[in-house]
Amino acid sequence: YLKAHFILPPHLLDLLPAKNGEEPTIQFLLEMVDILTTYVKKTFDRSTKVLDFHHPHQLLEGMEGFNLELSDQPESLEQILVDCRDTLKYGVRTGHPRFFNQLSSGLDIIGLAGEWLTSTANTNMFTYEIAPVFVLMEQLTLKKMREMIGWPNGEGDGIFSPGGAISNMYSVMIARYKYYPEVKTKGMSAAPRLVLFTSEHVLIPADLEAKIIDAKQKGYVPLFVNATAGSTVYGAFDPINEIADICEKYNLWLHVDGAWGGGLLMSRKHRHKLNGVERANSVTWNPHKMMGVPLQCSAILVREKGILAGCNSMCAGYLFQPDKQYDVNYDTGDKAIQCGRHVDIFKFWLMWKAKGTIGFEQHIDRCLDLSQYLYNKIKNREGYQMPQHTNVCFWYIPPSLRDMPDGEERREKLHRVAPKIKAMMMESGTTMVGYQPQGKNVNFFRMVVSNLAATQSDIDFLIDEIERLGRDL
Amino acid sequence: YLKAHFILPPHLLDLLPAKNGEEPTIQFLLEMVDILTTYVKKTFDRSTKVLDFHHPHQLLEGMEGFNLELSDQPESLEQILVDCRDTLKYGVRTGHPRFFNQLSSGLDIIGLAGEWLTSTANTNMFTYEIAPVFVLMEQLTLKKMREMIGWPNGEGDGIFSPGGAISNMYSVMIARYKYYPEVKTKGMSAAPRLVLFTSEHVLIPADLEAKIIDAKQKGYVPLFVNATAGSTVYGAFDPINEIADICEKYNLWLHVDGAWGGGLLMSRKHRHKLNGVERANSVTWNPHKMMGVPLQCSAILVREKGILAGCNSMCAGYLFQPDKQYDVNYDTGDKAIQCGRHVDIFKFWLMWKAKGTIGFEQHIDRCLDLSQYLYNKIKNREGYQMPQHTNVCFWYIPPSLRDMPDGEERREKLHRVAPKIKAMMMESGTTMVGYQPQGKNVNFFRMVVSNLAATQSDIDFLIDEIERLGRDL
Repeated sequence: YLKAHFILPPHLLDLLPAKNGEEPTIQFLLEMVDILTTYVKKTFDRSTKVLDFHHPHQLLEGMEGFNLELSDQPESLEQILVDCRDTLKYGVRTGHPRFFNQLSSGLDIIGLAGEWLTSTANTNMFTYEIAPVFVLMEQLTLKKMREMIGWPNGEGDGIFSPGGAISNMYSVMIARYKYYPEVKTKGMSAAPRLVLFTSEHVLIPADLEAKIIDAKQKGYVPLFVNATAGSTVYGAFDPINEIADICEKYNLWLHVDGAWGGGLLMSRKHRHKLNGVERANSVTWNPHKMMGVPLQCSAILVREKGILAGCNSMCAGYLFQPDKQYDVNYDTGDKAIQCGRHVDIFKFWLMWKAKGTIGFEQHIDRCLDLSQYLYNKIKNREGYQMPQHTNVCFWYIPPSLRDMPDGEERREKLHRVAPKIKAMMMESGTTMVGYQPQGKNVNFFRMVVSNLAATQSDIDFLIDEIERLGRDL
Repeated sequence: YLKAHFILPPHLLDLLPAKNGEEPTIQFLLEMVDILTTYVKKTFDRSTKVLDFHHPHQLLEGMEGFNLELSDQPESLEQILVDCRDTLKYGVRTGHPRFFNQLSSGLDIIGLAGEWLTSTANTNMFTYEIAPVFVLMEQLTLKKMREMIGWPNGEGDGIFSPGGAISNMYSVMIARYKYYPEVKTKGMSAAPRLVLFTSEHVLIPADLEAKIIDAKQKGYVPLFVNATAGSTVYGAFDPINEIADICEKYNLWLHVDGAWGGGLLMSRKHRHKLNGVERANSVTWNPHKMMGVPLQCSAILVREKGILAGCNSMCAGYLFQPDKQYDVNYDTGDKAIQCGRHVDIFKFWLMWKAKGTIGFEQHIDRCLDLSQYLYNKIKNREGYQMPQHTNVCFWYIPPSLRDMPDGEERREKLHRVAPKIKAMMMESGTTMVGYQPQGKNVNFFRMVVSNLAATQSDIDFLIDEIERLGRDL
């Protein structure tokens, strides 16, 4: 492969940005590619650390000459390349097989290539005019996702948004528009006091119904129920069919937040966890989470055709001209709450092409198999306790606490165990896993596998590392 | 430079995504780089078309075997590379020196390299834990931007968001929180009927004041004034100081939407158009527009420290743990309305390093000089009319309409001229420029220069091309 060995003299800076694609600017890009491919190879090398931790003040003081400050004068291209190496050096390798810290992890090479192409094309999703291919890819991919949800013929609508929170916001706006369209022109005073329902961990249908009745009795108007398909911490799935029954009974909008769990729709083995999703009015599904697509890639999918544009269109003639030579129904700008919109579709489309639906299914099945492997491994192992859920959440109990009776003192001590182990883990840079408290549960580890590069040996490594670091706490 | 000449056998697909950085996966990436660098070079070559236009149905039917449909089975890597070539072939070259169609254009090589690194790092801005370097870069860059706005010592707060519309939405939410913090916990019913003011083209201070008084008399509560610094069509600048006087008098939040015009703050020659911006409570500024940073890159900047997190924090302990080993004030997640947040800072930071502030100043000055060149060129030229503004907006009047008296018939005919010329332009693929109607003005061209690759010869070319295509209309 490429071994770059040229050094660019600083005066070549005059050529940047490339005006005519001059050779030195291409050489600069290739030098950068050399840095990046070296980084990619090391990321998958288990002898490489996941991170080289430093505190903010250390980085701000300028580690080994790495100067983050901006100045009036330009830097040489050589220095720019050094800056890039340093940026990677002091960062976190989220694609490392032992990085388990977030719902988004892994470094899919096809997805990465897709991102490189996307940034080279540097266009905007808002019209077919300037993004003809990407707009069609988005349309076809969204249809395919709606088919997997189970809506007849994949009909409906949808759009890619910058993330799950914004996709969920779309669903609330659409629901509000469906029941109170005049809010769009008259503001919130055109609607009564609306109530939305969602759960901290899992929706209990009988309790949901009681709360709906209660809200009505108080004079509020129940509007919207969010059923979570894969909660952030436990990976819990709400019982969608039972919730759909209630939504139908009370005429409420049903949204399924499958930001994390939506990927299970790709798996014949696991999709039953989302049974009933075809009864939802809208679904959030983030391919950038369990499906390993590079961040950002989130879709909001809507069952009713036309309502997305109905809700968001401003008919801004200065942005979207109706008198173009092509069918302007392909322009997506009037569906979006944004004007400029980043191209998030291509990497996902390209990964789908390269893996096939069957490849995504294998990806999902394998990630869940590894979670199961971890679960089985620690289930009966001394020093672990687990609440029961899809994501593997667990406490590591150091020997010093194992015989201590349950009570406030033990809880306080246990609460400090995961942060201490995590801090040591980051200092040693060997692996990363998230922790958090939840309700009355003190800090526990949450283990998620979305990185196809991880194997059973990496799970074994994590357990060994937790025990090594936590043994003497 | 790299000449890739290897062909990967389909069975290597099993290796994807790279699990251990195997050589073939790196080879695949380098094949992709070869495609992309070829594309970059052609983009700056004026003998290359800006686009090769096809209608949606043509692309959907599969141009020369380019199949957009997704399927169950994987494609070979060879086919993936073909797909990538086709994606670029049927797209639009937004970096071409003769692409003038959008506020965002150009292909800055440093910015591009920055995007490639960003996607290779594939992390998330929401904590220092997983994005230590990027989080600090964002903090330092935002401070620098606040200094340029003129806030004392660059104090205040801010965040990068997925685009100008979302940055503006932040400003509205923060203003509402400032005056009615209980909206955060009690909903909109905790606030009176709020009124926001913005203009279609330009805010007339006396008229603004009259409308504020009128709103108050009707029992509404004026809350927020948006002053536009660089409107989308005309590039018009509101008189910020006069508007700030009114906002101070009536205790209203002043937001400056500098999505397009914010870049002028970099130019000693042109920043006077934003005089008074330091009196704003919040500012939107999109480096992905006039400053040529690849999409997406938009900042919302706020003068009051702490209010951004105050407005948006949910104190979600399951996302942002307070008991980490580092100073968690560096975590940005609780300031954002998103959870996962794409790294938009690095390309901008890297361009700033490479150009220096002085380089951005040159960029801005040069783009405005080219606009001025166009303006001078057509000012007294037969067959053109212009409304007077910063963006150069103009009608091309074909000879057949030049002697026609003003009136409905001429207006209708003139209205159809720009779309016809634009359609022919796209068919021939030689250049692209936007058009739109505005108020009582029929369709006119809007010329914006944000692409550093453009020269006076490209402006000349555009004029020649408009006259060639429009001569016989």
